[in-house]
Amino acid sequence: MKFNAVLDSIKSYEAGKPIELVVREYGIDPRDVIKLASNENPYGASPRVIQKIADLAPTASIYPDDSFFELKEGLAGQYGVASENIIIGAGSDQILEFAVHAVLNENESVLMNSITFAMYEIYAKATGAKIVKTSSVHHDLDEFYELYKKEKPKLIFICTPNNPTGEAIKNADLTAFLDKIDPETLVVVDGAYMEYAALKDPACHVEPKALIQTYSNVLYTGTFSKAYGLGGMRVGYGIGMPEIITTLHKLRPPFNITTLTLAAAIEALKDNAFVRGCIERNFEEMARYETFAQKIGLEYIPSYTNFITLVLKEHDSKKVAQQLLEQGVIIRDISSYGINAIRITIGKKEQNTIVLRKLEEILGS
Amino acid sequence: MKFNAVLDSIKSYEAGKPIELVVREYGIDPRDVIKLASNENPYGASPRVIQKIADLAPTASIYPDDSFFELKEGLAGQYGVASENIIIGAGSDQILEFAVHAVLNENESVLMNSITFAMYEIYAKATGAKIVKTSSVHHDLDEFYELYKKEKPKLIFICTPNNPTGEAIKNADLTAFLDKIDPETLVVVDGAYMEYAALKDPACHVEPKALIQTYSNVLYTGTFSKAYGLGGMRVGYGIGMPEIITTLHKLRPPFNITTLTLAAAIEALKDNAFVRGCIERNFEEMARYETFAQKIGLEYIPSYTNFITLVLKEHDSKKVAQQLLEQGVIIRDISSYGINAIRITIGKKEQNTIVLRKLEEILGS
Repeated sequence: MKFNAVLDSIKSYEAGKPIELVVREYGIDPRDVIKLASNENPYGASPRVIQKIADLAPTASIYPDDSFFELKEGLAGQYGVASENIIIGAGSDQILEFAVHAVLNENESVLMNSITFAMYEIYAKATGAKIVKTSSVHHDLDEFYELYKKEKPKLIFICTPNNPTGEAIKNADLTAFLDKIDPETLVVVDGAYMEYAALKDPACHVEPKALIQTYSNVLYTGTFSKAYGLGGMRVGYGIGMPEIITTLHKLRPPFNITTLTLAAAIEALKDNAFVRGCIERNFEEMARYETFAQKIGLEYIPSYTNFITLVLKEHDSKKVAQQLLEQGVIIRDISSYGINAIRITIGKKEQNTIVLRKLEEILGS
Repeated sequence: MKFNAVLDSIKSYEAGKPIELVVREYGIDPRDVIKLASNENPYGASPRVIQKIADLAPTASIYPDDSFFELKEGLAGQYGVASENIIIGAGSDQILEFAVHAVLNENESVLMNSITFAMYEIYAKATGAKIVKTSSVHHDLDEFYELYKKEKPKLIFICTPNNPTGEAIKNADLTAFLDKIDPETLVVVDGAYMEYAALKDPACHVEPKALIQTYSNVLYTGTFSKAYGLGGMRVGYGIGMPEIITTLHKLRPPFNITTLTLAAAIEALKDNAFVRGCIERNFEEMARYETFAQKIGLEYIPSYTNFITLVLKEHDSKKVAQQLLEQGVIIRDISSYGINAIRITIGKKEQNTIVLRKLEEILGS
């Protein structure tokens, strides 16, 4: 059967390996597997959220309130915007997908960083749009602007903090860049890890309210998957002016998050103390990886997220990841992004102790 | 901002009103609201499934096994096919969306019944494809074939049993139709309510294994939202030959169902006795609506599903739905499908008793 030609170029997203796979393939007891590959919150979800999910398990048969009224109200309160500025997605991934389908087609182009969240490209390819990437590892907004002038992209992705590198853009640099972009170009500012950056360095804290009030062409995306500890529940959101949000809603399938997800996200917003505690512990533990890297003379990218990227020299990232995997430690080889590096989610104290010991055995020799 | 022109024609799906809305708008106690508008399973999910969800609530932070290994194995066993014949979606809706994007574009057309599941058209419109509909209320496969010869659609949707009418096609009629369709045309057979039809009339039981082995161009879709009582968990599946399934996987976003959804669906497949019991009770209760309709001289469409469609004469379906809504009973006015009718999900015995009494008050006079 002949399928749409644009599909020929799509390579599926390579997800972090699940614990079940390590158990199946290497016969390791699931309790001994340490998964630090997908930037999940190692402290889990808030106990309040877990209790809410357990209590509401009997509602599994009922579709959610498809207006997501209460969740939008909660987010509106949190960000100081209106409900009509908000769209809910199955992870912020889905909002990215809506944005791509709202503006891209085979006659348009999209601009993104050389190394960034892989789904931008995968979604864009499904529309046949031209993919334009910078050459720099980190977001170089001057290079972005040069390519913008040359290629006139209909869509620009800015990921701050960036995944899988961990770097963040200063808010002032971002707005200086946005000042130069015409309002017909949609700019997606992906803040999946923004809660971490905001705590580490207020200068990197991009606030959607200020952003969308000044730039009607900006769509900010956020997620419950990282700092809020709801990766498995699949819920994120987009914040923008109603013109954009209304259009994206046309692409939203009904009931795009689960009933329990909706309840979990509403509850999660009520426990910001939990989120703050997770982020504080994250950076305490990250310091141990930084100290380790310095000790063995390894380069790392200063991170504003819940993961750290170690750039390897003598060792091959693919082999290192495989060696760890066989010992029950799942991290991410990011060589497919064109960099000989491994990305490690910052785990809990006891997990990091084990991983750092294994890393020293493999890399320290 | 200028968005893709195809979006102009999209009208969003009109979901069944949630209980929360009735509580907000009419001040009715949520315990007094009867929602029979979205064909959820009124008996809920299997107690085993509910327990599993509650037990696994602490895993909300962990992404699911994105290969959905165990669920595919379970479905493969249930249907006698291989895992490579299966793709998992966030409801079977999402599989429909993948199918649309795999083959449709602005140069192609899609053929569907005049009255059928609204998402076929909504998804198709996003691609700019031409929408071709039959004129008959029920699936008239002769008319389908005439339109097929004339329009050469790239995609055909067959919904059996059909939503929102409830009618089912005989398996022999379906295969006689498929025999005449060229293998380059993708035919989606949407069996969201097939478990109900299979029990009511084995002649209407379409089995995906036989179907895909004979017709390499058929994609069968099924769901856990109806007979399995997992509407709120958002999980369905597509079954087809590997050529189709592999292509659809290119359009599948990672982690497209939640971690708890995955566990719930795996568990649900282990409790077929629960599913059978729900279906048996469904038809016992449906008989009460049929008796009622006959008594007051109202036309109804014989249903192979968990809902019944009453075709109104003197009364206006929109007004009847509104009257019921104000009394805390949510059913579906389907006048937007071009038919003066209401669709009622068959509820539990005590719910049906109340609804039938209110219907008699409104329609029986």
